[in-house]
Amino acid sequence: MENTSDNWKFKGNKELNSASAITVRGALNALMSNLNASDERAAIPLGHGDPSAFPCFRTTTVADDAICDSVRSAKFNSYSPTVGILPARRAVADYLSQDLPYKLSPDDVYLTLGCTQAIEVILTVLSSPGANILLPRPGFPYYEARAAFCNLEVRHFDLLPEKGWEVDFDSVEALADKNTVAMVIINPGNPCGSVYSYEHLEKVAKMAKKLGIIVIADEVYDHLAFGSKPFVPMGVFGSSVPVVTLGSISKRWIVPGWRLGWLVTNDPNGILRKSGIVDCIIAFLNVSADPVTFIQGALPQILEKTKEDFFSKIKTILRQAADICYEKIKEIPCIECPQKPEGSMFVMVKLDTSLLDGIDNDMDFCLSLASEESVIVLPGICVGLRNWLRITFAIEPASLEDGLRRIKSFYERHSKKK
Amino acid sequence: MENTSDNWKFKGNKELNSASAITVRGALNALMSNLNASDERAAIPLGHGDPSAFPCFRTTTVADDAICDSVRSAKFNSYSPTVGILPARRAVADYLSQDLPYKLSPDDVYLTLGCTQAIEVILTVLSSPGANILLPRPGFPYYEARAAFCNLEVRHFDLLPEKGWEVDFDSVEALADKNTVAMVIINPGNPCGSVYSYEHLEKVAKMAKKLGIIVIADEVYDHLAFGSKPFVPMGVFGSSVPVVTLGSISKRWIVPGWRLGWLVTNDPNGILRKSGIVDCIIAFLNVSADPVTFIQGALPQILEKTKEDFFSKIKTILRQAADICYEKIKEIPCIECPQKPEGSMFVMVKLDTSLLDGIDNDMDFCLSLASEESVIVLPGICVGLRNWLRITFAIEPASLEDGLRRIKSFYERHSKKK
Ligand SMILES: Cc1ncc(COP(=O)(O)O)c(C=O)c1O
Ligand SMILES: Cc1ncc(COP(=O)(O)O)c(C=O)c1O
Repeated sequence: MENTSDNWKFKGNKELNSASAITVRGALNALMSNLNASDERAAIPLGHGDPSAFPCFRTTTVADDAICDSVRSAKFNSYSPTVGILPARRAVADYLSQDLPYKLSPDDVYLTLGCTQAIEVILTVLSSPGANILLPRPGFPYYEARAAFCNLEVRHFDLLPEKGWEVDFDSVEALADKNTVAMVIINPGNPCGSVYSYEHLEKVAKMAKKLGIIVIADEVYDHLAFGSKPFVPMGVFGSSVPVVTLGSISKRWIVPGWRLGWLVTNDPNGILRKSGIVDCIIAFLNVSADPVTFIQGALPQILEKTKEDFFSKIKTILRQAADICYEKIKEIPCIECPQKPEGSMFVMVKLDTSLLDGIDNDMDFCLSLASEESVIVLPGICVGLRNWLRITFAIEPASLEDGLRRIKSFYERHSKKK
Repeated sequence: MENTSDNWKFKGNKELNSASAITVRGALNALMSNLNASDERAAIPLGHGDPSAFPCFRTTTVADDAICDSVRSAKFNSYSPTVGILPARRAVADYLSQDLPYKLSPDDVYLTLGCTQAIEVILTVLSSPGANILLPRPGFPYYEARAAFCNLEVRHFDLLPEKGWEVDFDSVEALADKNTVAMVIINPGNPCGSVYSYEHLEKVAKMAKKLGIIVIADEVYDHLAFGSKPFVPMGVFGSSVPVVTLGSISKRWIVPGWRLGWLVTNDPNGILRKSGIVDCIIAFLNVSADPVTFIQGALPQILEKTKEDFFSKIKTILRQAADICYEKIKEIPCIECPQKPEGSMFVMVKLDTSLLDGIDNDMDFCLSLASEESVIVLPGICVGLRNWLRITFAIEPASLEDGLRRIKSFYERHSKKK
C-alpha cells in the first residue's frame, strides 16, 4: 500500500530534548535571544567560559606554530589510534608528572575531544545498573546531562560558600551507599572560582578511600590559580585512592575550539586496571570519535615549548579582572560575594531578590538584565543554586567594568523603594 | 568502616566491551597482533580504509594552506556553536547543491566529527523504543555497533553480488514493518566498491516512500567513482522521500584524521522538521562534541579552492589500482571477484575454502595470511559475509602488486593436493 506523505512512520527520540535542556549552552542561548536588538551598546558576555575571542586572551604563537608544523608535515592526516598517538600521550604523561610524586606512563593517558569527552567517557564507563555518582552543587551541568544520558543516578553533595566552597563531607557521607562508584571534584572550581588546598584534597582522598569510590578530578582549569593557594593536582593522592584526572588545553592555552583533552588514570596500584575500568575505557573509546590527529601531533610542541611568560601574563590578567569584579560587586547591594575568586574564570554571587521590585528569582534577573542592559550573566539555577549568579571575569577589563556598571544601574532602577 | 584496598566498589559497564568488539578497528587490531615479527618484509596493509600515509595519496596543499590560514587568523579558537559555524555550513550546502535539483540552505547542514559522528547522531535520534532500522549486508559495522549502543534494533537486507551489489528489494520489503524508521544506503559502496545508477537510487527512493521510512545515504566516498557510472547523490530524490545524507572530507580529500563531516537533511518538503527529527538532531548535538572550530573555519577554502586536477589524479590512481587488483585476483583460484570495483577503495571477493588445506573460514585465512605473509586483509565476517574477504586497493601500486603476489603464494602453499 502506497503511503501518503503525511504517513511517515519515523519519530525522534524525545528523551534527547530533556537531556540537552539543562546545559549551560541551552541557558545562554535562551538569554541571548532575550537581548534587545534596539540597544545600541554592545552586549557584554559575562556568562561564558571562553575568553578566546578577546585580544588580550589570544593564545601563544607557539601553539599556532605547532599546528602549522604538524599539518604541513603530512605525518598526521591518518585516523588516530583509539587511545591517541603515542608521542602525544607521552607528552601529557610528562606534563602532568611534573607535579606528581610518581611518574605517569603514556599508557595512563587517553586523549579525548576536550575535557567534555573525557567526562562522557568516565560517566559512561561507570554507569553499570543501579550505580550512582556524587556530584558537587554548585557544579558543571554537563555532568548531569551526560549522567541522564547513560542512566547513571546522580546525588549532590554541597560546597560550602562560607568555607571557600570546600566540600561538605557530612553531606558526602550521608549520600554515599554501596552503589556509589565515584565523586567529582572540580579544581580550580567552576562555577565558584575556588582553589583547594593540599589539606583539603587530602581529606577528599581519605573520604573516597573510606567509601571505596573513585575520585574524578576535573582539572580543566589546571594552573589557573592566581590567589594565595597554588594549584595541587588530585593525582598527588593517587597512591591512596584511584584518581581519574580530566583535563584539556582549552583553558590554560585558551583554545577551547581545538578540542584536545585527556582522561588520565592516576593509579600507581593498578586498581582501575584490575577492576576492569581500564578495559571499559578502551572499549568505549573504540566506538567514540577521536581528537584530530594533527592536533595530537602538535601537542608535544605545545606542552613543552610554551613559555612561562605566556602563562604568567594570563594569570595576571585574570587576577586583575577578579580584583575588579570583587570590588565592583561590593557596590551592588543586591548581590553578595562570599569568597573572592582565586582561580578559574568565574565567581558565584548570592542574589537578594528581597531588595528588588518585580524580580522573583535568578532566572528573572538574568532575563531582564539581558533585555534591559545587554549584559549576559548565568543564572545560578543552571549550576544547581537557585538565586545565585555566576559571573565570568575572563573578558577585557574595560568591558568587565562596563558590565558591572550596567548591573549596578539595573539594580538602582529595580531597587525597592523604602 | 575503613575499606581495604581490595574493597573498591566501582565496576565498569561491561556492555561496552561487546559493542566495541564488532568494529573493523577491533578486527584489524587482532590481525596486526598476529603479524610475524621475524618476517623481514614490510607488512602490507590491505585491510584499512585510510590511504593517507602513502605519498601518492597526499592531500592537496590547498587544504594544508586553508588550515594554517585559519589557525593563524585567531578567529576560530572559540567553542563552536552546536550545529557548526555558519560559513562552514553554507560552504557544505553550496558544495552539495551543485549536484542537486534544488538548493540546500545552511540550516540543512549540521557539522560533525567526520561521517562517524554523523552516523552516531542519526542512529541515536531515530532510536525511539521499539524502532528498527534496515542496514545493508555486507555493510559498515560501525552502524551495528552504534545501534547496539542506543538499543536500536537492526535488520539486514542483502546486497546482490551478481547484480553489482544492488539492493535486494524483496528482502527490504520482507523485513520492514510498522516500526521500521529508516534504511541505510552506502554509495559509493564500502565494502563492495559499487556505484549505484540513477535508476537504482530512484528505486530505493520509491521503496522508502512506499514503506514510509527515511533514507540514510552514507556518501562518505562521494565522487570516488572511477568506473562507467557517475556518482549520483541520493539527495536528488529528496522531494519524494526524506533523505539524510552523511559525508565528510575524510575520503575525497584523504584526511580522515581531520575529523570533519556533515549530516545534511535533503528534505525540501520539511517532513523531518515537522516530525520533530530536526529538533532531536539539534538536542543531541547540544550534548555532543563539536568538530574543531578552526577546521570548520578552513572548510570554505577547502571546498571551494581545491582544483579539479587533484580530484582527477586521485581517481586515476584508484582506477589503476582497481584494475591491477581485479586482474591479479583472477590469478588466485581460491578467491573470486563477482564485480569489478567502480568506486570507493575496496573490493569484495568470495573465498573458496574447499580449495585450501587447513583453512576453515575467512577469519582463519586472514590470521594465517597475516602471520605467514605479513599481509592484512579484512575477513568478510566483519562486514557481515562469512567466507568473503574485503581487499583495499587504495595503497601504492607497487605494494598492492606485492601484496597480491603474496596472497597467491599463500594460496599455492595451502592449496589442496588433488
Ligand atoms: C568544569 C568544566 N569541565 C569541563 C569543561 C569542558 O572543557 P573542554 O573545553 O576541554 O571540553 C568545562 C568547560 O567550560 C568546565 O568548566
Ligand atoms: C561507509 C563508511 N561510513 C563512514 C565512515 C566514517 O568516515 P569518517 O572518517 O568521515 O568518520 C567510513 C570510514 O571508513 C565508511 O567506510
